Amino acid sequence: MKVAVNVHLKKGVLDPQGKAVLHALETLGFKNVKEVRVGKQIIIDIDTQDREKAIKEAEEMAKELLANPVIENYEIEVKE
Amino acid sequence: MKVAVNVHLKKGVLDPQGKAVLHALETLGFKNVKEVRVGKQIIIDIDTQDREKAIKEAEEMAKELLANPVIENYEIEVKE
Repeated sequence: MKVAVNVHLKKGVLDPQGKAVLHALETLGFKNVKEVRVGKQIIIDIDTQDREKAIKEAEEMAKELLANPVIENYEIEVKE
Repeated sequence: MKVAVNVHLKKGVLDPQGKAVLHALETLGFKNVKEVRVGKQIIIDIDTQDREKAIKEAEEMAKELLANPVIENYEIEVKE
């Protein structure tokens, strides 16, 4: 079962990469972009068919390794 | 309208960051992880309420700036 862990900087934490992408998009002519945030998407293939178990395990992985709780939020998304 | 552009290395392109995360997870005791791929998730706040227009614009952004078509795939996801 494939699970995505999406990790983003918390609101209020400066995201210079997002700002850079926003400016690059404006330069390219995309005028109606209000904000850009750049984060990570980690796709984990877990050897189980149990959806709940996969989500629980991905959550533990996010807490222990993938996200820094001081500055980052994460969300779990089942892909297949 | 918030749209996510998820950018990942194509299958067959070596993902050393994914491999590093896989090994770290194994070291932490997560034994049933088969594969890890690390990509980017770019969340773009587009000033429109038109879902189709937002998707179309995000697609153009992905092609022009966000993804490298030689080694990366992207998918568009409407967030809200």
